[in-house]
Amino acid sequence: MVDEGGGLIVAELQRGVTFPRGFETGAVRAGIKSKNLDLMLLASDVPASVAGVFTQNLVQAASVVYSKKIVQGGMARALICNSGNANACTGEQGEQDNQEMASLAAKALGVNANEMLVASTGVIGRPMPMEKLRSAIPLLPFELGSGIESDDEAAKAIMTTDTRPKQLAIEIATQAGRVRIGGIAKGSGMIAPNMATTLCFLTTDASIQPLMLQEALSAVIEKTFNRITVDGDTSTNDMCLLLANGASGVQISGGKSLEQFCEALHSVCLHLAKEVVRDGEGATKVAAITVQEAPTEQAAVTVAKTIAESPLVKTALFGCDPNWGRIIAAAGRAGVPFDANDAAVLIGSHPVFSNGRGREFDKAAVHDYLHQTEVEIIVSLGAGTQSATVWTCDYSYDYIRINASYTT
Amino acid sequence: MVDEGGGLIVAELQRGVTFPRGFETGAVRAGIKSKNLDLMLLASDVPASVAGVFTQNLVQAASVVYSKKIVQGGMARALICNSGNANACTGEQGEQDNQEMASLAAKALGVNANEMLVASTGVIGRPMPMEKLRSAIPLLPFELGSGIESDDEAAKAIMTTDTRPKQLAIEIATQAGRVRIGGIAKGSGMIAPNMATTLCFLTTDASIQPLMLQEALSAVIEKTFNRITVDGDTSTNDMCLLLANGASGVQISGGKSLEQFCEALHSVCLHLAKEVVRDGEGATKVAAITVQEAPTEQAAVTVAKTIAESPLVKTALFGCDPNWGRIIAAAGRAGVPFDANDAAVLIGSHPVFSNGRGREFDKAAVHDYLHQTEVEIIVSLGAGTQSATVWTCDYSYDYIRINASYTT
Repeated sequence: MVDEGGGLIVAELQRGVTFPRGFETGAVRAGIKSKNLDLMLLASDVPASVAGVFTQNLVQAASVVYSKKIVQGGMARALICNSGNANACTGEQGEQDNQEMASLAAKALGVNANEMLVASTGVIGRPMPMEKLRSAIPLLPFELGSGIESDDEAAKAIMTTDTRPKQLAIEIATQAGRVRIGGIAKGSGMIAPNMATTLCFLTTDASIQPLMLQEALSAVIEKTFNRITVDGDTSTNDMCLLLANGASGVQISGGKSLEQFCEALHSVCLHLAKEVVRDGEGATKVAAITVQEAPTEQAAVTVAKTIAESPLVKTALFGCDPNWGRIIAAAGRAGVPFDANDAAVLIGSHPVFSNGRGREFDKAAVHDYLHQTEVEIIVSLGAGTQSATVWTCDYSYDYIRINASYTT
Repeated sequence: MVDEGGGLIVAELQRGVTFPRGFETGAVRAGIKSKNLDLMLLASDVPASVAGVFTQNLVQAASVVYSKKIVQGGMARALICNSGNANACTGEQGEQDNQEMASLAAKALGVNANEMLVASTGVIGRPMPMEKLRSAIPLLPFELGSGIESDDEAAKAIMTTDTRPKQLAIEIATQAGRVRIGGIAKGSGMIAPNMATTLCFLTTDASIQPLMLQEALSAVIEKTFNRITVDGDTSTNDMCLLLANGASGVQISGGKSLEQFCEALHSVCLHLAKEVVRDGEGATKVAAITVQEAPTEQAAVTVAKTIAESPLVKTALFGCDPNWGRIIAAAGRAGVPFDANDAAVLIGSHPVFSNGRGREFDKAAVHDYLHQTEVEIIVSLGAGTQSATVWTCDYSYDYIRINASYTT
């Protein structure tokens, strides 16, 4: 069973959280949203190590405050998640409702309430429709299962303005043996994760102790979900949870196999993070903004995010307009010192700016390049050796349409 | 001539920079833009004290670098400004072109080149069409004049995506005597002034020494132009210049009359700043975002700007959607500590959030309120005693249309 080298064995785009052994999921229509799946339960056969990262927004949903405490304990058994209502800014009633959701789900599943994680997503500031939840939660255990259909329903049940489910499952060989990782994510707007993400739930059948799992997750999220942005707005409900139930019998306890596990977790998270951007509200394309030659990696991230969140850059991306002036202007206001005379900008492989001035370039060719659904912008600051990439999407008419009347 | 009290004597919405005595202006079509006025000269009869504030963007246009030096000398005679080309990111050639603009204009007017200020606005990264400027600049002195028509042409000649000219002139009584202040501004996109503004040119016939003038201007800009935002993008060409030529014979040298002068300057700048927001690209309304009960004034500004620049808040404003969840979520990510349970949000006079939760409110009434062209949002943080207001506009379909293909 022990593989010498690491490496990917299988990657399943149609599979998600039950691809790792010992996990089941089920979803129902509780009626919180008009007619779609809006409530899901994810359960491990046995108590699992749990790690989580949460929004840094000062305004935090009841589920964030609650689940943080469970994660601090290091172990969990299951997760209940609803879409259609964020249960944020709902005061004490919101906290009580969240606790009741946890208790009802734990009772239905036959586990302790303090083993139940809770996540919510949807409109901020509306009371949870508890009557509907009281009817629907007891039905969830009967829906539990594993396989392609269960995975798909779980991924769909957590969507809000998403146009499609986002999931990935992989099997990798580590020095300690083969393990599986699966994940689902949701998110389309209010996306600018800060030490967290929009909702993302990950499972693995590796056996890893909670502190090591938390370190692995935090490091991976920092370079994946924390490097995407749709609109610069950080949600009140961001949460990423990773459950490790040990069902593979493979123990990850450090060294090479931990490294291999982290690499694999990074691949899964990066895929899901980019899926979120690709499905950004109204998005027609994904742009990878790479900043090179920065004094520090954090400085590179800062400049890349400033460019990635510039409405002028994002509208130009929509129009396939090679307007590099907006790119360098955004870089210049990011707060990171550099000399424009040492800086350079490439759109794809086309140099458009260097030595403090625009370069002659084939406008039609760059315009055509920008028509693709995946484009790359590279900004070299000439101020160091560090680099970072941030993924963003464009602003289209549909971004305005989707957001102009979300609550009315 | 000396008035005991201060106060406004006259406010002229149709007048601008030549309402103060001893100033003339003239504008021509140089052909930089397709068919509109795009080059203007503003001249004082005598050498004037000059003060200026400039963009903090690291990437600065040639005109910014150049005019900063003139302002450091404290005195200037005239200003030449073109629209249609920013002469930014144009390297050494751009610096030479800017110097040539100054020299040609100085020669045509018969003054020294080091008395000539230069400002440019328009597309970044294109070489200045110097042949056109060499033909047009010598014509400018023949167009010089004062009065309603001259003012109007000057205000129009500096426009880019603006849909209308922005100007105001006033006469005030100070303890030292009556003085006049006039101003014009341009700007519609790439508006998030940082210690500066988009282009704004102010004149006064008061006599004030340069250091005092600079202090007055810096203090006023901080609370007017630096508190507006259209899209969070700080321009490479931002510049505000104030010329004081003393033609009124009234000396402002401190005390009560300086205070009165500063108040008047504040009114003019605030009017022009709000005009810029009102004419924001695609804007259908202006929103005043007031943050109260903040620990410091700067903290109030930070929270107000974060709300004012949130694409989700701005699209909700367009849709007249009372989506207060986005307002409190933006406040929560601004980096200023507060407890959501102590915070409150009002849309106009309607309380929509307090004590950590949404309040019952008349959705139709708030929706109607948000249909107005001037709306107010008040956020009380419950974390101090300081407050600040930031002015912003909404994001409409037209914002996308205008910006999707600006350079192509």
